Amino acid sequence: MIPDIISIIEKKKLGHALTQEEIAFFADGAAHGTIRDYQIAALLMAIRLNGMNREETVNLTLAMARSGDMVDLSAIPGVPTDKHSTGGVGDTTTLILAPLVAACGVPVAKMSGRGLGHTGGTLDKLESIRGFRIGLSMAEFIAQVQRIGVSVIGQTGNLAPADKELYALRDVTSTVDSLPLIASSIMSKKLASGAQGIVLDVKTGSGAIMHTLRESIDLAQAMVHIGADAGRRMVALVTDMGEPLGSHVGNALEVKEAIDVLSGRVQGPLLTVSLALGSYMLMAGGAAQTPQQGEALLRSALENGSGLAKLRDMIAAQGGDARVCDDVSLLPQAKVRRDVPALAPGYLHRMDTTALGNTAQRIGAGRREKTDIIDYSVGFVLNKRIGDAVQPGDALATVYCKNEEDAAFAIHEIQSAIAIRPEQALPLKLIHAIVEVDRITEC
Amino acid sequence: MIPDIISIIEKKKLGHALTQEEIAFFADGAAHGTIRDYQIAALLMAIRLNGMNREETVNLTLAMARSGDMVDLSAIPGVPTDKHSTGGVGDTTTLILAPLVAACGVPVAKMSGRGLGHTGGTLDKLESIRGFRIGLSMAEFIAQVQRIGVSVIGQTGNLAPADKELYALRDVTSTVDSLPLIASSIMSKKLASGAQGIVLDVKTGSGAIMHTLRESIDLAQAMVHIGADAGRRMVALVTDMGEPLGSHVGNALEVKEAIDVLSGRVQGPLLTVSLALGSYMLMAGGAAQTPQQGEALLRSALENGSGLAKLRDMIAAQGGDARVCDDVSLLPQAKVRRDVPALAPGYLHRMDTTALGNTAQRIGAGRREKTDIIDYSVGFVLNKRIGDAVQPGDALATVYCKNEEDAAFAIHEIQSAIAIRPEQALPLKLIHAIVEVDRITEC
Repeated sequence: MIPDIISIIEKKKLGHALTQEEIAFFADGAAHGTIRDYQIAALLMAIRLNGMNREETVNLTLAMARSGDMVDLSAIPGVPTDKHSTGGVGDTTTLILAPLVAACGVPVAKMSGRGLGHTGGTLDKLESIRGFRIGLSMAEFIAQVQRIGVSVIGQTGNLAPADKELYALRDVTSTVDSLPLIASSIMSKKLASGAQGIVLDVKTGSGAIMHTLRESIDLAQAMVHIGADAGRRMVALVTDMGEPLGSHVGNALEVKEAIDVLSGRVQGPLLTVSLALGSYMLMAGGAAQTPQQGEALLRSALENGSGLAKLRDMIAAQGGDARVCDDVSLLPQAKVRRDVPALAPGYLHRMDTTALGNTAQRIGAGRREKTDIIDYSVGFVLNKRIGDAVQPGDALATVYCKNEEDAAFAIHEIQSAIAIRPEQALPLKLIHAIVEVDRITEC
Repeated sequence: MIPDIISIIEKKKLGHALTQEEIAFFADGAAHGTIRDYQIAALLMAIRLNGMNREETVNLTLAMARSGDMVDLSAIPGVPTDKHSTGGVGDTTTLILAPLVAACGVPVAKMSGRGLGHTGGTLDKLESIRGFRIGLSMAEFIAQVQRIGVSVIGQTGNLAPADKELYALRDVTSTVDSLPLIASSIMSKKLASGAQGIVLDVKTGSGAIMHTLRESIDLAQAMVHIGADAGRRMVALVTDMGEPLGSHVGNALEVKEAIDVLSGRVQGPLLTVSLALGSYMLMAGGAAQTPQQGEALLRSALENGSGLAKLRDMIAAQGGDARVCDDVSLLPQAKVRRDVPALAPGYLHRMDTTALGNTAQRIGAGRREKTDIIDYSVGFVLNKRIGDAVQPGDALATVYCKNEEDAAFAIHEIQSAIAIRPEQALPLKLIHAIVEVDRITEC
């Protein structure tokens, strides 16, 4: 029987599971414009309210992936591996772990995205390196991974057009917050982009896609299930978004921080999380048996400089000025630099990560409209983390701005986004859970 | 705060009640095309799945009614009264009770509809009378009710355009079956068409808008609440749709049956239900204190011929050939007339009312496409009701068709739609419940 969209909507409205055929009919119709927007919208709301089971979610993901190009990375020897984050602030793990993992022999073929709302994007960060090309052809991309083991580019070709249609409609019909729709949207693009090993970084807490740990673990598990059912090697880490991961927020500033970490000058949460994600990438790529073994490999690539060398190679291969790896002052520099004084004594209790991300965006590190032009030099560096003690006048952060007006704005916003209280506070846990196909380990 | 549609969708998605302001924003946006169809569709599905409370439903109904013209019947002395049926087969109560009620002194100012699917429409029946005009102007309509106390016309002006938009979308997004949406759709047009007293005939059973008695009573109650909250005098009867109400199905045939009833030649379920609905119209109009008193008044109008006289007046006033009231052979006559023999002995247990209505439609009594032209002469007359005994060869019905092919088709369909079994069967109950503002009486 040929499916028809009204019967499909009715079935989901009544809470029944849709068949693979029905889901494919829907995804293809969305991709090709043969189903009307109002019918898609009604079905999205029915899915939001009545849910989808594991099989339906996998089928929707595969149908959306297959609605466009499916990237074939089989010409790359080994297990091409990717990492995907649900979107962080001051979170530049990709620039650290992609070269480190490649230096340990696992190919990293990664398609990244741009900043979105309050979260930054790897492509914008890479473009703050003069000359860096994120728009390689598929042949160039594969050849580069074959040659040096790593490449990070923008999404190429026509990946998951069904997802593009559905996402645009979800945004205006209040159907974004559906676990199966979020999981299938993310995973459809991942499956289409060809990596065989996929490590997910699912953020949790204020500013994250999911606010509670329970929801974040559920989302991580849904995505791990989808990838595994589609034959990929999968793991997800649920990491904290209660404060920015690194201390640097802003494009060139985050590149600088990545280089600082890869050259061994800087330790801390950004390195810790990068090593954790990277060690699971090494396991997915078959280069390590345990996370501990993976981390040891990554640490030696860090210590012997082969990680930084790999970043240098990648920048050069993609047309960028690789000298930044040895002289970060070649990165774009902001005109105005001002400290953000603490207004009261006490301990840092809470940061509003969303507000901090929005502040960076407002002073030019991100786009509010698609056509906005980013100022790569601007952003801020946090000097304190949650749990730290401060005295009035201590520099909580330093802002990097294009003028004094922006600096005054950013100082005020950062002061408002950081809650200081008299009582002591504990540092945040970085990693809350590790979600594998057959088990969930809360940390 | 100015409402925005995404927040409104979100609120209903989360199961919260919408404010009057939010509902008005939605209904106006739907009527004026300022809200996109996909956002309306998403909200309709959220309403279908999360429901609406009594206050929301009343607000939606009023907002839809106010989205277009509000008919003002205040120039008519007394309480202008209307009856609305959710759609029956062989159900021509309007042609009986409108003149009878008017003959008892309560003005009947009724806007009727056309046939829809398997159910017949009063306008189509009236148009089977040569010359009858259903398209009076509002001034003509009001003047006629002032002069003779009764008029039945088609919907005039721009009544409840928001409902028109919503209904068209509901039809293609599987959101028809929502109690608050059904109730508000029906009642928005009723409130806009100006009657102060409204008697609802809510059908129940196979072929009806609601299949179970419970759902039918819930719908009746929702509509009674809406009308009462909007200041109208309301009552609803829940009546059976397990078989056609009258014995005649088809436009001219139903006019003939109405005239037969009004002239006292025919008794039976059609008269019983007409008297029940009519007696509540008399109560709404202030001419009776109890249903018993109302029924006594109606019976005397029937017996003294003033009911039939009123029908004659109405037909004449609206340009029709009133001589049909005294000579039904002046109504369109079908060329071919054939009996439908029973195929087995036994008792009538069940009729498929939907199939019977569809059969009448298929042989030309109704439209399948909006542009189809109705043959007023065709239809059928049932000779047996549920509970009756039959022998093989007994005429279950007589079909009236334009040719032998249609007759053969209709005979087969009617035989299939009537279940005859050896064991005895009880006649159907006609009226299941009476729903008033403050009480429900199951009969």
